[in-house]
Amino acid sequence: MIQNSKLLTEAVDALATLPSIGKKSALRLVLHLLKEDKSKAHRISNAIINLVDNIKYCGKCHCISDNDICDICQSMSRDEGIVCVVENIRDMMAVEETNQFRGKYHVLGGVISPIEGIGPNQLNIESLVNRVKGGSVKELIMAISPTIEGETTIYYISKQLEDLPISISTIARGVSFGGDLEYADELTLGRSIVSRVAYSSTS
Amino acid sequence: MIQNSKLLTEAVDALATLPSIGKKSALRLVLHLLKEDKSKAHRISNAIINLVDNIKYCGKCHCISDNDICDICQSMSRDEGIVCVVENIRDMMAVEETNQFRGKYHVLGGVISPIEGIGPNQLNIESLVNRVKGGSVKELIMAISPTIEGETTIYYISKQLEDLPISISTIARGVSFGGDLEYADELTLGRSIVSRVAYSSTS
Repeated sequence: MIQNSKLLTEAVDALATLPSIGKKSALRLVLHLLKEDKSKAHRISNAIINLVDNIKYCGKCHCISDNDICDICQSMSRDEGIVCVVENIRDMMAVEETNQFRGKYHVLGGVISPIEGIGPNQLNIESLVNRVKGGSVKELIMAISPTIEGETTIYYISKQLEDLPISISTIARGVSFGGDLEYADELTLGRSIVSRVAYSSTS
Repeated sequence: MIQNSKLLTEAVDALATLPSIGKKSALRLVLHLLKEDKSKAHRISNAIINLVDNIKYCGKCHCISDNDICDICQSMSRDEGIVCVVENIRDMMAVEETNQFRGKYHVLGGVISPIEGIGPNQLNIESLVNRVKGGSVKELIMAISPTIEGETTIYYISKQLEDLPISISTIARGVSFGGDLEYADELTLGRSIVSRVAYSSTS
């Protein structure tokens, strides 16, 4: 790294703290900003500061929001009775982008992982139980990654809710659409045979 | 993209204006910043603003500098008599990292490229000629990418200097043709400086 400029070095070092950005990429980004109009760098900096200083999390579903309650939770056109439980905001966005779900969400903020020291209390599970106790929720869809940690989390939540009149489902697991059977992993393929569904030509 | 938060959308859009960062990468970076301590986002923003607002360019060699004259130009331990002419600051860093060169630099700020509308007057060529006329420079090493534009630039500079008592060399053609200097490995780039060849406009 050039020792000529502390300002440059600091900008490169700061950007290189971001994931998947190394020193060479950071340098390329910084030199790009120096070539462009100053307003571009100011826009990026202001947007970042504005975000981290002013961001709120929805008091109901815990997703990112500009208000105390997010637009999805406030929406009257979405079904209050079905709540899709997701690990994080990116998973929520992924479900939302399918345009297949018109209910509400609940963001856990992670999954139970003893190895990483994440227990149920670090996650938004208590507020989920309280939402269900509120009475309007009829079904929970667990859109959690099918890992050991994910399964543990689903099991834990189901235990917390076992006395309440609610149905819990998980998203279907199986071979992906357009995927070749020979490339599916054995666990997925095995499970998709065990939990086969009746064929209907109208579906 | 989630429509829930204007702050999030603006931060993602701003970051996605950077080269090689698309919306998905920008979203990953932004969510990373939200997970981390606020101070990290502030550090990045401040470093960028500090850089673009306060950066200077060396009045002698035109490289990035925190002062009016850069450390390399001020250095007494480096040979005033040999000047390495480079296209941009990244190329200067690449040469510097080989540890093969102990002279001074001159950053052109680009190469002559009629297609992109870059003529000699947009580049730091006049100041190079004036440096040579100053008398202390005995040799110019042209560390310019071996492209048509690069060759044109070398030719143009050599014509400007043909009446002056100076030897002009180009880095040896160890660097592959059509390749960018910054992607050459250090050994190749270092050797190409050691075994530079005298420039002749007829070759």
